[in-house]
Amino acid sequence: MRVEELGEAGLLARVIPLLPTEALLGPGDDAAVLAAPDGRVVATTDVLVEGRDFRRDWSSGADVGWKAAAQNLADVAAMGATATGLLVSLGLPGDLPVAWVEDFAAGLAAACRHFGTVVVGGDLSGASEIVVSVTALGDLAGRPPLLRSGARAGDVVVLAGTEPGRSAGGLAALLAGGSGGALVEAHRRPAPPLSLGPAAARAGAHALMDVSDGLLRDAGRIAAASGVVLDLHLGAGPLRAAADHLAAEAGVEASTAEGWVLTGGEDHGLLGTFAAGADLPDGFRVIGSVRVGPGAVLVDGVRWSGSGVGWDHFGG
Amino acid sequence: MRVEELGEAGLLARVIPLLPTEALLGPGDDAAVLAAPDGRVVATTDVLVEGRDFRRDWSSGADVGWKAAAQNLADVAAMGATATGLLVSLGLPGDLPVAWVEDFAAGLAAACRHFGTVVVGGDLSGASEIVVSVTALGDLAGRPPLLRSGARAGDVVVLAGTEPGRSAGGLAALLAGGSGGALVEAHRRPAPPLSLGPAAARAGAHALMDVSDGLLRDAGRIAAASGVVLDLHLGAGPLRAAADHLAAEAGVEASTAEGWVLTGGEDHGLLGTFAAGADLPDGFRVIGSVRVGPGAVLVDGVRWSGSGVGWDHFGG
Repeated sequence: MRVEELGEAGLLARVIPLLPTEALLGPGDDAAVLAAPDGRVVATTDVLVEGRDFRRDWSSGADVGWKAAAQNLADVAAMGATATGLLVSLGLPGDLPVAWVEDFAAGLAAACRHFGTVVVGGDLSGASEIVVSVTALGDLAGRPPLLRSGARAGDVVVLAGTEPGRSAGGLAALLAGGSGGALVEAHRRPAPPLSLGPAAARAGAHALMDVSDGLLRDAGRIAAASGVVLDLHLGAGPLRAAADHLAAEAGVEASTAEGWVLTGGEDHGLLGTFAAGADLPDGFRVIGSVRVGPGAVLVDGVRWSGSGVGWDHFGG
Repeated sequence: MRVEELGEAGLLARVIPLLPTEALLGPGDDAAVLAAPDGRVVATTDVLVEGRDFRRDWSSGADVGWKAAAQNLADVAAMGATATGLLVSLGLPGDLPVAWVEDFAAGLAAACRHFGTVVVGGDLSGASEIVVSVTALGDLAGRPPLLRSGARAGDVVVLAGTEPGRSAGGLAALLAGGSGGALVEAHRRPAPPLSLGPAAARAGAHALMDVSDGLLRDAGRIAAASGVVLDLHLGAGPLRAAADHLAAEAGVEASTAEGWVLTGGEDHGLLGTFAAGADLPDGFRVIGSVRVGPGAVLVDGVRWSGSGVGWDHFGG
């Protein structure tokens, strides 16, 4: 059965029961009502477009539902907040199989259960390609938000979550005609370390952000916002290990693996800085240091001259 | 200049300064932070797709920006809440003129200033047609939300805002090759009576909703959620006046005008119920009554047999 045969009300009646929707007021009225016990609410939104952010032959509906949730939840965690709920809008071609939408909902539901959140609302529209727009809300539990602008000279640069570059390695495997394996799975189902966002805030992190567009590009955003230099250590330590693991696992040259580590997007790790000597929450690894200087990123003390500097949605 | 020539960062640098963005934390980090003084937050989302929800030859970018804000803000008001901020995502074709996006931002900014809210975040992606996804957040100021399920037998049915059917009349004019006039303007720039949402809550309204899909269809949602019959008065009163005004203004038969009044979407009035004899806030007009019965809508005591029952995004 196709989406246009079932219609809007029929589709909602099939999909909403698949989702966890517990809230002060869940889907079904003009708007939802969520608890915001802190007296503030964290809010972020991301859009995924078929053919640009995902391909139906490379990712199942469930994969897309998972990823749409995960990447928004990572943005909430990157503020040091805990997610309180998602709103999910879909633009759908009329000839799309209803099974794809049900599969999407199943992946979205799986992510909600895994990460501990709910879907409180959304919207449906027709479209000529699948468009998924998710808004995530979160609670700061009384703490100040963790910003990109808080890094200070003398800090250590830290990273938590999946080893960087794995999603890029999976994407490269798909581009080369592959279809499975752990790297492809990392690309399809990112698993951001959400609980480490609030943990970083409690431990006094100076800055934190979600790595969605590649380590160099996103570290550059912290550097620019904070007015400091971030020097990432690729010669030794966790980034070296990540590149070595990737080179072995994917059977690629070290330079290719280093490119994935530094410029591959969509790993959704948490990148931040702490005062040197701070007691880091388990899961954060030191990958660099912060120095005085004019908003730039270095790799082992020099500008990166390898390929790629991350993702621009218009190729600019 | 086209969107793909400017790139994502360039586009954001042009557009964000056009918008009012005051918040505890506005655009630029992983997420925004808004005040939620009530300890709860109202949240709603809507998506507009080019060629389905708007046409570029019929609505300017500024019109689309205005409408995207207005329709989401109407959903917040329909809960009895006051908007605290918007998140706005755009999917844009690479060959779209940057001027369209700037015009969109100008219309969005005009709506924010008119309605008293701000844009706190958003996202950009490429897409093959323009997709606008807006999430609106709001505050209940300590009151319970106004639901669709609160209507009671014996209530009066009330409506506030633009006379119903004007947006449909404007759409009909555009379909017939027209390009201007007050009805077309009503279609392009809906002006929901936002302050009457909280006013209805303070005055003890039993139910309230935003009329986006046509009076009959949306009244049917109140009737179904509340388990009552809503009987709308078309023979006399405000709906009769609305149909007569439309027939005269558009030069159409009474039956056509009545169809617009009852089934035309996108007027974004506020439809609700109050106890009979309640002191209605200025701007609400009585258009019907609520009776015991099984979730249905009548027009002057009988089922509507005219054309159209509102809008389905997949034509189902």
